[in-house]
Amino acid sequence: MTNADSGRGTASVTMRDVAKAAGVSVATVSHVVNDKPGARIGDDARKRVQDAVEALHYRPNALAKTLSQGSSRFIGLVADAIATTPFAGQIIHGAQDEAWKHGYVLLVANTDGNAAAENDAIAMMLEHQVRGILYSTWYHREIEVPPALANTDTVLVDCFADGSGLPSVVPDEELGGRTATRELVDAGHRRIAFINTTTPSPAQSGRLAGYLAALDEAGIDRDDALVLSAAPDQEGGYASLDAVLASGATAVFCHNDRVAMGLYDGLRERGLRIPDDIAVVGFDNQDIIAAHLRPPLSTVELPHYELGAAGVRLLLGIDTRPASLVSRVACPPVRRHSI
Amino acid sequence: MTNADSGRGTASVTMRDVAKAAGVSVATVSHVVNDKPGARIGDDARKRVQDAVEALHYRPNALAKTLSQGSSRFIGLVADAIATTPFAGQIIHGAQDEAWKHGYVLLVANTDGNAAAENDAIAMMLEHQVRGILYSTWYHREIEVPPALANTDTVLVDCFADGSGLPSVVPDEELGGRTATRELVDAGHRRIAFINTTTPSPAQSGRLAGYLAALDEAGIDRDDALVLSAAPDQEGGYASLDAVLASGATAVFCHNDRVAMGLYDGLRERGLRIPDDIAVVGFDNQDIIAAHLRPPLSTVELPHYELGAAGVRLLLGIDTRPASLVSRVACPPVRRHSI
Repeated sequence: MTNADSGRGTASVTMRDVAKAAGVSVATVSHVVNDKPGARIGDDARKRVQDAVEALHYRPNALAKTLSQGSSRFIGLVADAIATTPFAGQIIHGAQDEAWKHGYVLLVANTDGNAAAENDAIAMMLEHQVRGILYSTWYHREIEVPPALANTDTVLVDCFADGSGLPSVVPDEELGGRTATRELVDAGHRRIAFINTTTPSPAQSGRLAGYLAALDEAGIDRDDALVLSAAPDQEGGYASLDAVLASGATAVFCHNDRVAMGLYDGLRERGLRIPDDIAVVGFDNQDIIAAHLRPPLSTVELPHYELGAAGVRLLLGIDTRPASLVSRVACPPVRRHSI
Repeated sequence: MTNADSGRGTASVTMRDVAKAAGVSVATVSHVVNDKPGARIGDDARKRVQDAVEALHYRPNALAKTLSQGSSRFIGLVADAIATTPFAGQIIHGAQDEAWKHGYVLLVANTDGNAAAENDAIAMMLEHQVRGILYSTWYHREIEVPPALANTDTVLVDCFADGSGLPSVVPDEELGGRTATRELVDAGHRRIAFINTTTPSPAQSGRLAGYLAALDEAGIDRDDALVLSAAPDQEGGYASLDAVLASGATAVFCHNDRVAMGLYDGLRERGLRIPDDIAVVGFDNQDIIAAHLRPPLSTVELPHYELGAAGVRLLLGIDTRPASLVSRVACPPVRRHSI
């Protein structure tokens, strides 16, 4: 590599070089550099070491430091699908920012949900003496805890495992469903359809519970004819059009933004205007989609960045753990022009 | 953490424990575990060490191993925007898979394009004695090389720096533009509009060059009236509608899938059918969008996974470097129903 031969200079300066330049022993340099408590080093020697470190551009070896201190500054993050969703990236981003803030570095492994890759990733992290592992999934669900995680501190992110005793951080699906529905209620709607997903999941049950709670709070009678179900994508939303229109709804809460996007297509084909003829609210605040539909979609946000950050805070003991072991993060409303 | 106290067992088994169980010296265990060449260990002693390693679930300390071998098994990946695009995830995924295949672990840092965060990330990686660094951007562009990269082997991924002497891996924008245009030519179109981006970039110049080359190859006269420009998002595509219709085009090559999505909205509002009234091809094969438009969008794929994988192969010297320093990766056609 063209820049490698000339540039390795600073990396090849050793503790011995620093000791020689400062006129002290290697042990003294080590004590100063690693800031060992209890080592008695005179101010003069300390100053000479610090000057030599600066003059020689000496870079202490982080691995040696880890060994001498007996613990590493790594946090592992095992994710099942970095590649297939923009969401996982936000979890990584939040976890990394929070880890760095506290002097930790994130080791990231993508497993594609493959058990062998998962075991390899966890073994690698244990070999690097991670402080602990965040185990995350790209959509909120219950998991079987991989046995290898028994060997280290673990926090589950965007997933949970009842009876495992492991702390977890998940989105508050019910509160999110209430928030989305209340946005429609507050705009004056009384006949509100909910297109739920066909996939059993905490999102399915939680958002439905939130929808019903918001109706109850507003004194609106529940009506089973208004609760529909569809595949959680554009095709599902488009296919729901007839049922939505037949229900007599003036507003629709869609399980996610992709469903809303498909519903938009169907409504447009019938010449119906959003929000004048029918109001729509989504869920997720999906990047690239929500803000760019016509009209831009009002929705609630899945707090992926915050899930990652909160996971690190739980792991490091910065946040107190709730007695229930499950921390729920709110999904805030994002107001645009579809209500 | 509930599982921490009980579970740390395996991590606390030391080389000394193994030596005691096997009835050999610690040095012998070290030689066997680290597979040191030149160390003469009898078959019997080797077998006893291996049995003891297994029986005690001894896990060699990867950090100590790195130090004893004088080189690490880390590759660094610095990305400017993990969070704001699903693309970066694919680069990470490809780099990680390829790194693992060769026994390396990826250290990932997200910098949000912030120079201070970038310096911190690179310094951290150097401290961990990475084998080298992949420096990546979320869209293909020319960069200023951060000075700290002079201290290690570097490969640029999805970006380049003329005159830096650094190898880089980028998408072949021109070939991609030719491929997209040829898909329309092959379907019988002669009057093909191109909605280019307003943002100066290799994608802007490369895709235009490919569009023109494909016309030339097909013996179709160039017509400036067919080359439009717009913001590279849904809003830009929607705003291009009148110009597209005025140009008399029967087919449109859109700078990216988001532009195609906006154009779809406009065409639908005018009652025009895709592909019967007008054919559309995109660029990117953007997840969550391209396959789910009505009709599903024909496009060419930005090969982000392969960019990450090829970057690792270049770094490790597995792929031969092209004389030009720039490796271009093809963008394959993805055929759906908009042509």
